[in-house]
Amino acid sequence: MVMTATESGTSAARSFGPAVALSCRECGQQYDLGPRFACEQCFGPLEIAYEFGNVSRESIGRGPNNIWRYAGLLPVPDNVAELPNMNPGLTPLVRADRLASEVGLRSLHVKDDSANPTHSFKDRVVAMAVEAARTFGFTTLSCSSTGNLAGAVGAASARAGFRSCVFIPAGLEEGKIVMAAVYGGRLVAIDGTYDDVNRFCSELIGDPAGEEWGFVNVNLRPYYAEGSKTLAYEIAEQLGWRLPEQIIVPIASGSQLTKIDKGFRDLIALGLVEDRPYRIFGAQATGCSPVARAWEDGHDVVQPVKPDTIAKSLAIGNPADGPYVLDVCRRTGGAVVHVSDAEVVDSINLLARTEGVFAETAGGVTTGVLRKLVAEGGLDPQAETVVLNTGDGLKTLSAVDADVTATIKPSLDAFKDAGLL
Amino acid sequence: MVMTATESGTSAARSFGPAVALSCRECGQQYDLGPRFACEQCFGPLEIAYEFGNVSRESIGRGPNNIWRYAGLLPVPDNVAELPNMNPGLTPLVRADRLASEVGLRSLHVKDDSANPTHSFKDRVVAMAVEAARTFGFTTLSCSSTGNLAGAVGAASARAGFRSCVFIPAGLEEGKIVMAAVYGGRLVAIDGTYDDVNRFCSELIGDPAGEEWGFVNVNLRPYYAEGSKTLAYEIAEQLGWRLPEQIIVPIASGSQLTKIDKGFRDLIALGLVEDRPYRIFGAQATGCSPVARAWEDGHDVVQPVKPDTIAKSLAIGNPADGPYVLDVCRRTGGAVVHVSDAEVVDSINLLARTEGVFAETAGGVTTGVLRKLVAEGGLDPQAETVVLNTGDGLKTLSAVDADVTATIKPSLDAFKDAGLL
Repeated sequence: MVMTATESGTSAARSFGPAVALSCRECGQQYDLGPRFACEQCFGPLEIAYEFGNVSRESIGRGPNNIWRYAGLLPVPDNVAELPNMNPGLTPLVRADRLASEVGLRSLHVKDDSANPTHSFKDRVVAMAVEAARTFGFTTLSCSSTGNLAGAVGAASARAGFRSCVFIPAGLEEGKIVMAAVYGGRLVAIDGTYDDVNRFCSELIGDPAGEEWGFVNVNLRPYYAEGSKTLAYEIAEQLGWRLPEQIIVPIASGSQLTKIDKGFRDLIALGLVEDRPYRIFGAQATGCSPVARAWEDGHDVVQPVKPDTIAKSLAIGNPADGPYVLDVCRRTGGAVVHVSDAEVVDSINLLARTEGVFAETAGGVTTGVLRKLVAEGGLDPQAETVVLNTGDGLKTLSAVDADVTATIKPSLDAFKDAGLL
Repeated sequence: MVMTATESGTSAARSFGPAVALSCRECGQQYDLGPRFACEQCFGPLEIAYEFGNVSRESIGRGPNNIWRYAGLLPVPDNVAELPNMNPGLTPLVRADRLASEVGLRSLHVKDDSANPTHSFKDRVVAMAVEAARTFGFTTLSCSSTGNLAGAVGAASARAGFRSCVFIPAGLEEGKIVMAAVYGGRLVAIDGTYDDVNRFCSELIGDPAGEEWGFVNVNLRPYYAEGSKTLAYEIAEQLGWRLPEQIIVPIASGSQLTKIDKGFRDLIALGLVEDRPYRIFGAQATGCSPVARAWEDGHDVVQPVKPDTIAKSLAIGNPADGPYVLDVCRRTGGAVVHVSDAEVVDSINLLARTEGVFAETAGGVTTGVLRKLVAEGGLDPQAETVVLNTGDGLKTLSAVDADVTATIKPSLDAFKDAGLL
């Protein structure tokens, strides 16, 4: 059964914990909680409005070792931890002393989201969309994806008992294709870019054929996007209930960066952390850097581009939340910076050899931007800094150049002859 | 500085928490804690002997969300959680209702060790070896590996600041090679099988050239092997401090299975769980099933074989702990069972589509054996059962057959024409 926004009313409200309404980000118009994503008045994006109850450090600390410890701050049912879901989150915040010393920072942590079940941060947002889809009675989960999301939707659908049909641009990395297909759902490749895939999904969602389909990043997007707030909550809790002073976040659609900001503001409003300034920095690959270009040019609007970069998980040429990213980075005193593909590869290797973290290309982008910002004086080297790794190097193997040092016969003489001692 | 066993004495004892000695598994001869692995009297394998202090469910519950919550039961320094280490463990115990219902079990959980930092259970054992290597003053970490261990040693060496040089058989999966090489250490391929690699390492360790080298699974093996006990501890804690009645464990060297048994016995001895029977089942791939063959033939010794299976992480033809595996499975009322490569692939897909867990081939072996045991009446379908997934499907992509359903133009008509609605 598919509920409309108006039908969903009070029962849906109970299913969404502290969430009370959908609210237009542009004009503030409010709607009942339902499977809708755009304002009828001004076409602005809808986001979740809350009335938080009592949430304390102690009540969070008693919760499960995953994102559901923050259920009181998310649009999910109270019993969410008992429902079949991938239960992502509480990924390691790695103290990165060796990387800090190489790049020239006093205090650095890597938030390593490759530890999630399908090894990217997408498990966080999909976990939220699954709960909304369950409440709305959708039977099929779908998405447009640059790869990571397809795997996350496939796995979560299998776990929770949904059918799935996900859409990717043709030509993705083998690891991402296999990981999306192995869970038994449908995986459809589209001849075109991610932005073409996205347009196709919008077309499908308007068709009667798509009626029972929950597109996690289209008609479930307001719920889905809130999952990224958990990155902010975890980082603050793992730092001992303190906001980092500087944080580097990758930009694809830009949603993640804006929700990390929202998460920090939640914590301040609830008195869970001290209200002190934090700076948010956005990171893009030069080959797909529409937000960084707008930042450099001082524009408020983001001019779409055609992506050409190895950082395929960030290759969104027309990022929906681009303008909001510019707002957040301006307000917090951050910046939006881009690095070349060569710097991405270098930075993947740097992170791996200093901290034992094997990042996806997106992690190479953030680490590269970190390095560039320090070199150019854009970061305060004394301030507490966090850099995000949102994906796993195993999914972008072809991007890195790492191979055996030598192949030898199984003898000590062969080892010595090869000059390996 | 390399300490010998006799030099290490009391200072090493303090560095090893509750561990008090090395003890020969065959003759019981005791040795000071040092970098040694074989008994001088009878050449039997050495293992750690403990004098446990006060360890309670509460003290464990207050510990970090990783294996160091069990530091009081492991040969590691008291301050281990503050040292640079990969901090693996506390991986999800997934309630697998959908898989249970497909295979015909009342209660089933999947212990999913793909959630570890380098996505296999090897992070657990390497974490222990790193601490021993630090105490003994080794400067290089090394190992013979079927792939997963190489990645775990590479990453942990980077994190902890060791040099690394790891040895693998030529011809491993690309994912395992890149993941082992990306951390910047040396990766040497040996023309031969894993058993050839192992023999080569034994040769190297006897050479002066290897003096400052800690081979995690040779001269550090007694410490290393204890890491597998944490699987037992976690499973019991995650079940609400209860032992599972049946557990399926993969067999490579066999060490993991014997240490899970040791872990369960620790918990009983300390009164942390009720003393009730549990049955341990070993799982091998038919193409490398020396322990299963010995089980079938009722032998106490294990006849080496030449491996030929897609389950490369289990492809040890001459498993060091084979006889001890036979002991444990006999004592607990379990069995050792093998499945074909075709069943391994089927079972990877089964686990993925029912539970959203993408297992390495080793997880296909255990899931296949689970299915076979239920079908043949070897498992009690009413008993609480746990199956281990010890690695990640992303590292063995070529083993699975999963691809896009279709490639289409970005239009609704193309989607409908492809018969995908």
